[in-house]
Formats: sequence, structure tokens, C-alpha cells
Amino acid sequence: MSTDPSDLHARRLAAVRDRAREIGIDHVVVYSGEDMAYLTGERMDSHERLTAMVVPVGDGVPLLVVPALELTHALRVAADRVGAELHPWADGTDAVPLVAGTVSGRVAVSTAMPALHLVPLQLGVDGEVVLASEVIDHVRAVKTPSEVEQLAEAARRIDAVHARMGEFLVVGRTEAQVGELITAAIEQEGLAHAEFVIVGSGPNGADPHHGVSERVIERGDVVVVDIGGPLPSGYHSDCTRTYSMGAPAAGVAETYAVLEEAQSLARNAVRPGIAIGEVDAAARDHLAAAGLGELFVHRTGHGIGMGLHEPPFVAPGAETVLVEGMTFSVEPGIYQAGRWGARLEDIVAVTADGRRDLNTGDRGLRVL
Amino acid sequence: MSTDPSDLHARRLAAVRDRAREIGIDHVVVYSGEDMAYLTGERMDSHERLTAMVVPVGDGVPLLVVPALELTHALRVAADRVGAELHPWADGTDAVPLVAGTVSGRVAVSTAMPALHLVPLQLGVDGEVVLASEVIDHVRAVKTPSEVEQLAEAARRIDAVHARMGEFLVVGRTEAQVGELITAAIEQEGLAHAEFVIVGSGPNGADPHHGVSERVIERGDVVVVDIGGPLPSGYHSDCTRTYSMGAPAAGVAETYAVLEEAQSLARNAVRPGIAIGEVDAAARDHLAAAGLGELFVHRTGHGIGMGLHEPPFVAPGAETVLVEGMTFSVEPGIYQAGRWGARLEDIVAVTADGRRDLNTGDRGLRVL
Repeated sequence: MSTDPSDLHARRLAAVRDRAREIGIDHVVVYSGEDMAYLTGERMDSHERLTAMVVPVGDGVPLLVVPALELTHALRVAADRVGAELHPWADGTDAVPLVAGTVSGRVAVSTAMPALHLVPLQLGVDGEVVLASEVIDHVRAVKTPSEVEQLAEAARRIDAVHARMGEFLVVGRTEAQVGELITAAIEQEGLAHAEFVIVGSGPNGADPHHGVSERVIERGDVVVVDIGGPLPSGYHSDCTRTYSMGAPAAGVAETYAVLEEAQSLARNAVRPGIAIGEVDAAARDHLAAAGLGELFVHRTGHGIGMGLHEPPFVAPGAETVLVEGMTFSVEPGIYQAGRWGARLEDIVAVTADGRRDLNTGDRGLRVL
Repeated sequence: MSTDPSDLHARRLAAVRDRAREIGIDHVVVYSGEDMAYLTGERMDSHERLTAMVVPVGDGVPLLVVPALELTHALRVAADRVGAELHPWADGTDAVPLVAGTVSGRVAVSTAMPALHLVPLQLGVDGEVVLASEVIDHVRAVKTPSEVEQLAEAARRIDAVHARMGEFLVVGRTEAQVGELITAAIEQEGLAHAEFVIVGSGPNGADPHHGVSERVIERGDVVVVDIGGPLPSGYHSDCTRTYSMGAPAAGVAETYAVLEEAQSLARNAVRPGIAIGEVDAAARDHLAAAGLGELFVHRTGHGIGMGLHEPPFVAPGAETVLVEGMTFSVEPGIYQAGRWGARLEDIVAVTADGRRDLNTGDRGLRVL
């Protein structure tokens, strides 16, 4: 198989067409952003101006509808990669008919397309508009070996930031100050930017989606650090470790050990052929058995790739069957409202007979 | 009128309800992001987890459907501001019925709601789903005096960055290096972050949406610098000035003078009661009369507020009638493919009898 990157995108588009045909879709409308980057190599973000690629599932070339003022060299190259014909449109004209007039039958649209474009498109289409979840997202969910290697490289780089945490996370600094140092380190490690930085110290650790605050880190704090950023190619990293500022208070290490075992059980459950909900259950059941079930308030994980959060989701009862090449986070947590929290997150890839851990840093409660 | 900020949001919600009633809407579904921030004071962004506020236009309290793990103190305060009842939902359950089951009739949804949520919502709603453009966007387009003052403050801060451009834009640096210095200056001036930085030198200036590149700034370059960032409160700035690195080549100053006059004519056209397309025409006609019409490849401007680009748009033939309190950019440009470009952008506010320029920096071709 060729490794010519133009072949890469042509192969992805062929996979999307094959899948669409298989489930009875006639046209696929790819919106700018992650789906567009996955299929053409360029995100083509353009604010409120409609940018979309219409892919006929049968014969016919894809049509790339783009604002005329976005017609850069890079965009022309991206169109060439997949043999797309350009349909530029000028400010002051209506772009929706350029898409609506070229599709019919069952039309699958990117999940990211905003209502601003979707509602007029639906009104103009001679056919039924459905989500492309079972088409584009379905194909994106199964990574090639090259994609898994990129996610592994992103994971190595974010692991390197966690390995240096003792330089950043210091008693007397605010969470925001620690966050700035982590942001700089993420960029130093060659990730494109810090996509998010959570430094949840003490009671702030009990809010799963806390960011950073002006709270000063104190001796004895338990601190949840959840960080990530993409490679320049767009593949994401996302890793959480929990730190203790000096010796932890009574009971913390014991509770953390239950969490660590729950996460280990969930990772060990990963193999082709099982429903992804079984991965969630492995963590959830262990925490429940230890009397910590009510403190675990979220799903166990999310898919990761060119999207930071993408299908498949590791949630209670989720039925997606794991296949080799799927990549997702395994991140149970326990949240003691008003007191402290802990979370442990690794990215794993489904292999032919089990899993590969893409993050490899120490998973214990790290005392700084 | 009270200036209690909780009244502010209650007043905005009342205005949305009044407008909805006026045009025959029964329920408004407000999605997370700008619309939610405008109406409650919190963006409530939450990746792929559905977060929406259902506003019945008649009797009944608003319902705030939120992921249980996002139920922070700030979110509870935001809900209280508008008297909304919380409907938290847990991972692994379906949130769409919480919205779909509580709306009926003509249901207006935020333009930003992605297909991921909109398509299932449409399937579950007993009624017709339409865009909220004529409801929420319509109300957002007309700013209060306090909002205009915030945009004026954002404009002053971005003007201060342009005033320092001689420190950053220096022959021998790359566009990317200049961009990093500008980014730091934007933050130093107290804007929350650099939302975008365009440094289009020489031929790169001919691409209206160029960002930065590794091109080295040379003596004689014309350089388009288009920059902006929001205040911490969320109100945006956006200002373009064009620079010449030393004396400009023959013809550049003359061409720029035509652009400056076109932009001045467009600003002078702004007053209540005219169609916004007349503002576009004022710039476009002047450039066309000078034989430069084909080099002006985009609309003249866009609304600005909590959104960087929001309605109304200043485009050919656009029919929105200006009213006091509307705020938008006036930014004609000329683009000589492969050679150079120039753009001049100011934010203006419509006043009772004309306009106010929110940016006040020198509009000439600045020789550095």
C-alpha cells in the first residue's frame, strides 16, 4: 500500500463512500473542521461562510463549495487530493443552493454542521437529511496504524509534561500560575498548543471540568491535573494524573488505590468483540463494590483522534462493538464534593487481541 | 432603569420573548456558547454533551438542560439570574427528550446548535423547528449603551496595539515572529486573548484571510495587519491597518488613498433608517469608479458584539435597516494577486443621527 499522503485522503474518501453505500446513503455533505481535515487534509474553517464538500456516493466527482475569498493554494491542493471540483461563491450570494441543488435521496451531513446552514439546507433538499454519524464518524473511529502511531507520539509528549510536573506544581503558586507553566511545557514538547489545562486543587478537584483558578496550592492538597494538546498534524493527547502535595491525608491513598484498580480493570477489559459499555462497567462495578459508586459521576471515556472527544463513547450500556484500531480514553474519577477529587486517565488503542496503552507514565498517586 | 447585572440578563430574556411573540414563535431553544452567555452570563460550553435552555414564550419558567457533571456554582448562579429551572442529565442517558418533550409549535433554535443535537431534536419535536436568527440574533444585533461602551473599550485596547506596531513589525523578522509579539501585546493591553492575528506581508497581503507565515518581512513590503481579541466580558475588537516598510513602491500610496476614501465614504453613509447594503455600496461604488472594483473580493463588514462575526452583515444588497445601537465593521480591501494587498477596518456604532467610530487610530498608510 502506498504511503503517498494524497492516497491517504483518497482512501479515506473511498471508505466513507463504501460505508455510505452499505447503509443506503446517497450523498454525504462534509462540513469544515475535523471531518474536512480528515478527508482532505485541510480544516477549511471559515466562520459563518458555508464551506462544505458534497460527495455523491455513486458516480460523480465531489464538489467543494467554498467562499471565493478562501480559495488559497492550500485549499486547491486539498481539493486535488480527492479529485474535488471547486464551486466558489461570492459574498452577497446564497451558497446553500450550491449544496442543496446537487444532493438528493438520503443525505448524510457532518454532525458539526451548525443549524445556521443545516436548516436552510433541509428546506432546499429534495430528500431526507440524516446525521453522518454512521458514515464519517464510523470510519473515523477506526484508526490506521499510522494514526495510532500519531496518537502514541502525542501521548508520549503529554506524558513528558506530566513527568516534569514537580517543576510546575509547587505549594504557594496559584492554579492559574501552574497552568501557565504547563501550557508553556506543552508547547516546548512540540504539541501545537495546549487544548485544555485543568489544575483542580483541593475542593476544586471535585469538579470534573474545573479549569484553573486563583486558589493557592497548599501543603496536603490533592491535585487533579488533566492536560492535552494536539500534534501539528491534529491528533490529540489527553492524560490525567493525580498529585499529592506532601503526604496525603488519612484515607486518600487507600481511596486512590481503589480508583487505580478500577482504571486498570477497565483497561484490561479492552479487546475486540466486546461492547464498549463493558469497559465502562469494569471500572464502575469495582468502584460501586468499594462503596464509591456514587462519587463516579461521569462516563468512563471518549474516543480520541482528530477530535479531542469523538465517538465511540465509553458510557454505561453503550453498545458499540470494539474493533482493532479504535482509540479512546479510560478515565474513571471520584469526586468528594467540597473536599477533594481524583481521576486517572490513559488513552488506549484496541489491538488484534487486546489493547495497547498509549500513555505509559506512572499511574500511582504521585507525591510532590 | 436598574444596573443590577441580574436585571440585565432578565431584560435580555424578556426582549427575546417579546420578539418571539411578535413573530409567532412558541418556544426558543438557546444553545451553549455566545447565545447562552448573552442571555445568562455563562457560555456553558460542554463539548458534545447537550446544554440548552428552553424558553417558553408564554407562561412558564425557562428550563436549563445541562450535563450533571457541569453543574457548577457559576452555572447555578446563571440559572438563577433568569429564573431557570435546572434539568440535569447523567452520562449514559439521552438528553434530547428533555428538550424535545418540553417544546411544541414553532420552535426557534440557536444558529450555533450543531446537527449532532439538532437532527435528533427535530425528530422528537411535535412542531416546526426554525432558526432563531429573527429572535435571538435580532435582539443581539442592537446593543445597549453599556454594550457599545464595552466595544469602544475593546477598540481602544486594540488601537493601542496598532499604535505600538513599530516595535513589532520590523524588517528581517518573519510574519510569525511579528505575530507572537502582537499576541503578547494584545494580552498586555488587557484583552483576554488574541482571537486572531493576520500579518500579510507583500504577496501574502493579497489573501484576505492569510494568518502568519515564515515569510521574512522585507524593505518595501506593504503589510496588512488585522488583529483582535475580546475583553474578559466577551465583547470583541477587530481592527485592520496597512503598513509600508519604508517608502512604498510607485502607485501604492495613490491606490491606498482610493481605499481610504472608499472606507470613509462607507462610514459616512452609516445612519439609522438606511439599508445596510447602502454602506457596502458606498465603498464598492467608489472603488469601482476608480477601476479597482474587481480587486475588492469580499463584503464590506460584519456585525460585532459577543460574537466576532455576527449579524448584521454589510454585504451587497443586504436589506437590514440600521437602527441605533447596531455595531459592525467597515473594512473594504484591495487585493493584487501575487503582489500586495491593503485593507482598512474600523468598528462603528449606529447613533441616533449618524455613527460613532469606535476605533480612532490614524487610518493612513503608515510608513514604518
